[in-house]
Amino acid sequence: MVYTETIKLRMLSQGVSDITGNVESAVKKSDIQDGICTVFAVGSTSAILINENEPMLINDLKKALDKSAPEEDIYQHVENAHSHIKSSLIGNSQTIPIREGELTLGEWQSVMVANFDVDQMEREVIIVVMGD
Amino acid sequence: MVYTETIKLRMLSQGVSDITGNVESAVKKSDIQDGICTVFAVGSTSAILINENEPMLINDLKKALDKSAPEEDIYQHVENAHSHIKSSLIGNSQTIPIREGELTLGEWQSVMVANFDVDQMEREVIIVVMGD
Amino acid sequence: MVYTETIKLRMLSQGVSDITGNVESAVKKSDIQDGICTVFAVGSTSAILINENEPMLINDLKKALDKSAPEEDIYQHVENAHSHIKSSLIGNSQTIPIREGELTLGEWQSVMVANFDVDQMEREVIIVVMGD
Repeated sequence: MVYTETIKLRMLSQGVSDITGNVESAVKKSDIQDGICTVFAVGSTSAILINENEPMLINDLKKALDKSAPEEDIYQHVENAHSHIKSSLIGNSQTIPIREGELTLGEWQSVMVANFDVDQMEREVIIVVMGD
Repeated sequence: MVYTETIKLRMLSQGVSDITGNVESAVKKSDIQDGICTVFAVGSTSAILINENEPMLINDLKKALDKSAPEEDIYQHVENAHSHIKSSLIGNSQTIPIREGELTLGEWQSVMVANFDVDQMEREVIIVVMGD
Repeated sequence: MVYTETIKLRMLSQGVSDITGNVESAVKKSDIQDGICTVFAVGSTSAILINENEPMLINDLKKALDKSAPEEDIYQHVENAHSHIKSSLIGNSQTIPIREGELTLGEWQSVMVANFDVDQMEREVIIVVMGD
């Protein structure tokens, strides 16, 4: 069985939004008990992050990503190369197991979408639930 | 068809454990011939790594991750921000194809779980095998 | 339903090849309308990248990865530790949703395989399409 849902979020530049509730709700609606849930960020400057949703930690993560791809650096791909690089390092897709109708996230694991672009943008996330 | 298995490992801080045998065994038990196997690390300071299991290479990888997130740095999220960042850079989920009942890993690819936390911990990994 | 395809590419060292057409073609052949497509790079010095296929951006990304794992550094795992580390940071597997028989890639998202090894190599990529 396959259940799919699309969510759209207006996001600030460098914004991170918690979508755990949306993903849990999609799993519930699917009525799938055992399987997997794939969460995919549409867009080459966005990413899906599974980690603790704690604002100070998110700041620390952004600073760490800035070491590899600082906003104020010289790039061949002008304007937003750093946004693309951060997206590539975190990744656009994550897949989470489902057992007994629930995501198997740990106590401190939230599902978040990041908009690494230099502008605010409407971001699209696709959630696919598959299984029995 | 869906087959799920949970494994638990007591792991040292910064430890990396090879679970290729566990994943292969789950695929065998599932009796699935064609499909995918998702391996998910529960916990926001752990990760699933697919690479060569060679202790000196693992040391090199840890040093590379320390460039982005050194243990001895100033973070807003005190105690273990570096552990969360390393987890985000490697990622909690990996999905491996199955053909003719076997994982399609290359000769030098092992499936490993990493505990990036500052303490030894019991780590949980969920393996989901889906297909025909 | 499960549909699987293997592609092989001869690739230069540090080369990146666009395989979006191959992945789209596999989805078409599968005739699956709703589900997921997993793309997996066989080999511990290769990776699957979903991002904009723009040569100057790819150069920027390589330079960013070189900050974590420069080719000319001292490693315990001699010869190609940097190749393995870059593979681990980008990752070997990506999973993309399928809706109405199409990948849900954004306008600027291409699927690419990277050969981070120090030699030219034949690289193998497995594409698995699952769903209804």
